[in-house]
Amino acid sequence: MKAVILGTTGYTGMLLLRLLADHPDVDEIIPVSSSKYGNPAASVDPGIGKSIQSKTGLVNGKLVTLEEAVALKPDVVFAGLPHLESAKICEPFFGKSVVIDLSADFRIKDHELFARAYGQNPPRPDLLPQSVYGLCEIYPEDIKRADIIANPGCYPTCTLLPIIPLAKNGLLKGKIIANALSGISGSGRKAKLQSLFCERTENTCAYLPGQTHRHFTEILSQISNFDSSLDLFFTPHLVPLKRGMEVTTVIELAKPVTEAEIGKIYEDFYGDKPFVNLVPGTLPESKNVWGSNRCDIGWQVQGSTILLFSVIDNLVKGASGQAVQNMNIRFGFKETAGLSLYGEL
Amino acid sequence: MKAVILGTTGYTGMLLLRLLADHPDVDEIIPVSSSKYGNPAASVDPGIGKSIQSKTGLVNGKLVTLEEAVALKPDVVFAGLPHLESAKICEPFFGKSVVIDLSADFRIKDHELFARAYGQNPPRPDLLPQSVYGLCEIYPEDIKRADIIANPGCYPTCTLLPIIPLAKNGLLKGKIIANALSGISGSGRKAKLQSLFCERTENTCAYLPGQTHRHFTEILSQISNFDSSLDLFFTPHLVPLKRGMEVTTVIELAKPVTEAEIGKIYEDFYGDKPFVNLVPGTLPESKNVWGSNRCDIGWQVQGSTILLFSVIDNLVKGASGQAVQNMNIRFGFKETAGLSLYGEL
Amino acid sequence: MKAVILGTTGYTGMLLLRLLADHPDVDEIIPVSSSKYGNPAASVDPGIGKSIQSKTGLVNGKLVTLEEAVALKPDVVFAGLPHLESAKICEPFFGKSVVIDLSADFRIKDHELFARAYGQNPPRPDLLPQSVYGLCEIYPEDIKRADIIANPGCYPTCTLLPIIPLAKNGLLKGKIIANALSGISGSGRKAKLQSLFCERTENTCAYLPGQTHRHFTEILSQISNFDSSLDLFFTPHLVPLKRGMEVTTVIELAKPVTEAEIGKIYEDFYGDKPFVNLVPGTLPESKNVWGSNRCDIGWQVQGSTILLFSVIDNLVKGASGQAVQNMNIRFGFKETAGLSLYGEL
Amino acid sequence: MKAVILGTTGYTGMLLLRLLADHPDVDEIIPVSSSKYGNPAASVDPGIGKSIQSKTGLVNGKLVTLEEAVALKPDVVFAGLPHLESAKICEPFFGKSVVIDLSADFRIKDHELFARAYGQNPPRPDLLPQSVYGLCEIYPEDIKRADIIANPGCYPTCTLLPIIPLAKNGLLKGKIIANALSGISGSGRKAKLQSLFCERTENTCAYLPGQTHRHFTEILSQISNFDSSLDLFFTPHLVPLKRGMEVTTVIELAKPVTEAEIGKIYEDFYGDKPFVNLVPGTLPESKNVWGSNRCDIGWQVQGSTILLFSVIDNLVKGASGQAVQNMNIRFGFKETAGLSLYGEL
Repeated sequence: MKAVILGTTGYTGMLLLRLLADHPDVDEIIPVSSSKYGNPAASVDPGIGKSIQSKTGLVNGKLVTLEEAVALKPDVVFAGLPHLESAKICEPFFGKSVVIDLSADFRIKDHELFARAYGQNPPRPDLLPQSVYGLCEIYPEDIKRADIIANPGCYPTCTLLPIIPLAKNGLLKGKIIANALSGISGSGRKAKLQSLFCERTENTCAYLPGQTHRHFTEILSQISNFDSSLDLFFTPHLVPLKRGMEVTTVIELAKPVTEAEIGKIYEDFYGDKPFVNLVPGTLPESKNVWGSNRCDIGWQVQGSTILLFSVIDNLVKGASGQAVQNMNIRFGFKETAGLSLYGEL
Repeated sequence: MKAVILGTTGYTGMLLLRLLADHPDVDEIIPVSSSKYGNPAASVDPGIGKSIQSKTGLVNGKLVTLEEAVALKPDVVFAGLPHLESAKICEPFFGKSVVIDLSADFRIKDHELFARAYGQNPPRPDLLPQSVYGLCEIYPEDIKRADIIANPGCYPTCTLLPIIPLAKNGLLKGKIIANALSGISGSGRKAKLQSLFCERTENTCAYLPGQTHRHFTEILSQISNFDSSLDLFFTPHLVPLKRGMEVTTVIELAKPVTEAEIGKIYEDFYGDKPFVNLVPGTLPESKNVWGSNRCDIGWQVQGSTILLFSVIDNLVKGASGQAVQNMNIRFGFKETAGLSLYGEL
Repeated sequence: MKAVILGTTGYTGMLLLRLLADHPDVDEIIPVSSSKYGNPAASVDPGIGKSIQSKTGLVNGKLVTLEEAVALKPDVVFAGLPHLESAKICEPFFGKSVVIDLSADFRIKDHELFARAYGQNPPRPDLLPQSVYGLCEIYPEDIKRADIIANPGCYPTCTLLPIIPLAKNGLLKGKIIANALSGISGSGRKAKLQSLFCERTENTCAYLPGQTHRHFTEILSQISNFDSSLDLFFTPHLVPLKRGMEVTTVIELAKPVTEAEIGKIYEDFYGDKPFVNLVPGTLPESKNVWGSNRCDIGWQVQGSTILLFSVIDNLVKGASGQAVQNMNIRFGFKETAGLSLYGEL
Repeated sequence: MKAVILGTTGYTGMLLLRLLADHPDVDEIIPVSSSKYGNPAASVDPGIGKSIQSKTGLVNGKLVTLEEAVALKPDVVFAGLPHLESAKICEPFFGKSVVIDLSADFRIKDHELFARAYGQNPPRPDLLPQSVYGLCEIYPEDIKRADIIANPGCYPTCTLLPIIPLAKNGLLKGKIIANALSGISGSGRKAKLQSLFCERTENTCAYLPGQTHRHFTEILSQISNFDSSLDLFFTPHLVPLKRGMEVTTVIELAKPVTEAEIGKIYEDFYGDKPFVNLVPGTLPESKNVWGSNRCDIGWQVQGSTILLFSVIDNLVKGASGQAVQNMNIRFGFKETAGLSLYGEL
């Protein structure tokens, strides 16, 4: 099993390096970087230390170019690349390797919706029909057969997991109000003024609220698959965490239902899913899933209103971890292989 | 002008020490502590250093007992004490000094509502009629004449300031969905496991959501003064800030209105208020008001929905700063005296 | 292989739960808590989720009492208990199980030195001769044969690893000046005012400087094993990290030596040690080892002075991780089993 | 009194805006920015809000160009500009305005020492003789007469204040070992990868250790003014604070002296200095001076060794605050005007 990482020097790429270093079914890791190729992985990312040495025999522990990676004929490619560039850069792998794309390029099938969110048409409309939205707990059967997997965004993952079972059961109505809090790593590893320590510590703010964030489109288009009558206002906020995400969602119930009945629905839906952790009677905290691939879900019914609470690690279940989970499902590995079930302290 | 501080060793008391040390109209500060009396203020609170020396002549820089403070016949008393105890401890000052109570004991006039939130009747129902809710920008005329001022809670201050002008103008309808993010100092200076550095850093969560937090009652009872048809779901969240608060509120508009028209309403309402800072076209960030007594307000209209964004420093405009502002209004000082108009970097 | 954890609800105990949950050679985890026994581990520590379920068959996922743990006849006992209590509480296990004690009770063999640091004699002087100081890279042969292993303190681990190879080679002289920076988890999980988020964020200070911290005694007594002519001034500082430690040490060289020669000495000493990561030419950063069991070591020679730089995760290599490493060595498991070689992002 | 700020959009410039907005003796603030001129100060720096409106009549609240600032003939110029550029950009003000230069361009009189630290000769060697090193507590008489004041670096300020009285009294000998911890704002407001939130939170490291940091040269050249026999090893560290600095210094005593005698020497030296706060018997914490212009100093004598501990806010006493203090001394204002004596909570 040979795995290529595109965009190794970003946070999602760096985390993929770590997850694959520990993965029992991955034999070779081929890290690609357009800017740092030729350098030892451990000099570009000192945290990795010697841990991937035994898995980089082919490339001798060094970052390589895209061309070198193509020549090595990998089984799977993880693309941690910018939106609108990713599908193009992955071109040489389509049809040969399974591509797990962490960008948005294959996440929205509707061309018009995609264009509204990303300002242009999907880069590879021809491949959209054969791609799958890789929300692992929702579409596992499709994922098993897909060669292009669109790894979901962090906000969509955390927002959708508690909503979908209820929407599918017709329990919701009207306008979903979701508020999300995200750690700063969600902004990536670009040197931007707004991402400086001194700009983000002791600071919090909303941004791209309501129906203006790109992930709004991704979330609503997924909800519509289960109940097209629902509308959404989704407001993300930056909070001074490195990693972590919390979403609080308030929705009108379509009919009376108890907290216990909600619990039953979730249990039926997620009871056999290793990475969904229901916390009835309490509210989830993001530190409990820090470093893990878990999504913890809590809920409260107050009169005709239901409140949903979900937490993930935005870099793990919200990005690189779910990408590995997608690989596990696609290749028939144990679903939890290489992924943590517990949150770091 | 002699000012007593009750509860000097909590965060609100420590901040009052600082604000009064710099206040041009306060001559004597009399800091009270039931646990630390007899100690020099600077040994209990090393941050204060020598800064209040010149203002504590009578008590010689030391913390004193309640009895000593009563004997000094202060003009104003700031009570930074626990709910349900505050009104009792302030007993000797009623009728003699202006009491600015930072607890909830006088915030809710309706006995039943108070009991629902605090588990018992208001401690001094007899004094409720003569007390005033000290939301400075809303009730300045009442504050000028009051001898008991109920300093508002931090969440209510930040949530109400953007809502009230719109509710008063009949622009809102239905269920207000407010989500608040608060710095940890809002939890006070008690040694609790949940407030430890290692429990709160790299962590975020919702708590007491919807209609279960005590401040829900305070907020809704104030909104009802302006439009009793509105309902509220208010969910607070802890985020790893020392100081700061952000509230994002989503509401249905009762009639079509543009962002510019909203701006005009706010301008009419708050144009002459030094501590309300409208930020049309942008979203406020909590660091911009860190250390100041400001509330920055932003808004967006999206279809028939309005989104409101407000930030304060929870310890300043949300507690001790607004208490000083109340003193300024009550005693006819300059409203900004001793208070900062800019956020610390 | 059955492993007992004493003090499961402290940070070292909580981390041991996680490390053992992932450990390939541990079949049963028996978590003990004197205050929380009877509760499911996942309710006391929600971060652990379902991850240890498969390893807690005997105790059914619940915390148990000391008596229950004794009855289960564990192979190994990890004691994350307070100094001076630990040796007493472990009494029923001595002679039956291998005890890895994370407290100081067996760290200092000299009774007088121990008493100077801890205010009383060692609690079990009779067992001191058969106990071993579990600094894994230095005393592996002794550890293989020991039934009582004194797991080193976090400061000693990070300070000693770069010093010992040089002291052993007679390269150092005079007074070692070591300054250490520690994350707040080193202060434990007690609800103390000084450990509150608002007291530690945006704050740093030295404490117990020079020759006054208990770990000073532990460090100097170990250095003396290799060069008894050396003296030490060791000053710890608190910095607002959850986890992490950095030590900067300045020492006079006993004879001229180049950086390359120092590198050679370290390479000879640590080249085959998986958890020591030499970083010649750069300075180590604590985030590079966050979550791993690594110690990264850097050095500079400036004239006749050598500067040493070392980083660890205070909870992993500085506590629970080294405890697991000690178990691995003692029981002949792979030294890296269950331990991470890379730092979390 | 008209004050120009050069480099308004950096952290030191932004803080100068705030300090001068509150300063009782400054009537006009003229903020200069080479990149943002023409924009309202409040749009470039939303934290400033309306607070400087009343002081920017001439420039109407907007940032202006250097040329415009020159034409307005300011009394004082604060230059928050890069080293080696500052002296050149200030050219039009020399001989006309008092220039307080926050860069290093005038800090080191010895050309060779300057060149060793900054890689080239001092940019204006002709003006060096008439410039003064603006360490306010040490050189107040010189400052009163100077028209070019070299505002000291943050590390030198914090390191020198506890050392100079002892060096001057001949109490020290040998090699001073100083270790400094600095908040991240010391790295400035440039968008650099190393200054990102996710790179600095949960991270700490030493950098440019021993005799390699530029401030090493500045510190040692100042110490030499009082005792040229002393040597220095100075190692700075980054810790995840926005603002704050702590220095721990270990030195051999030249003769036996008690802690009380040290206290007496400090009291004689600093007793009348408002911004030096001696804390005998305790160790200073950086939060106690956060936002203030104070330097808190503690000390311990252990045998023949003295340990010194000092804390400042690196942006206030370490930069903009000391610059204002220099203005106050130079123009005969009250030394504490516009500066805080207490640390923010």
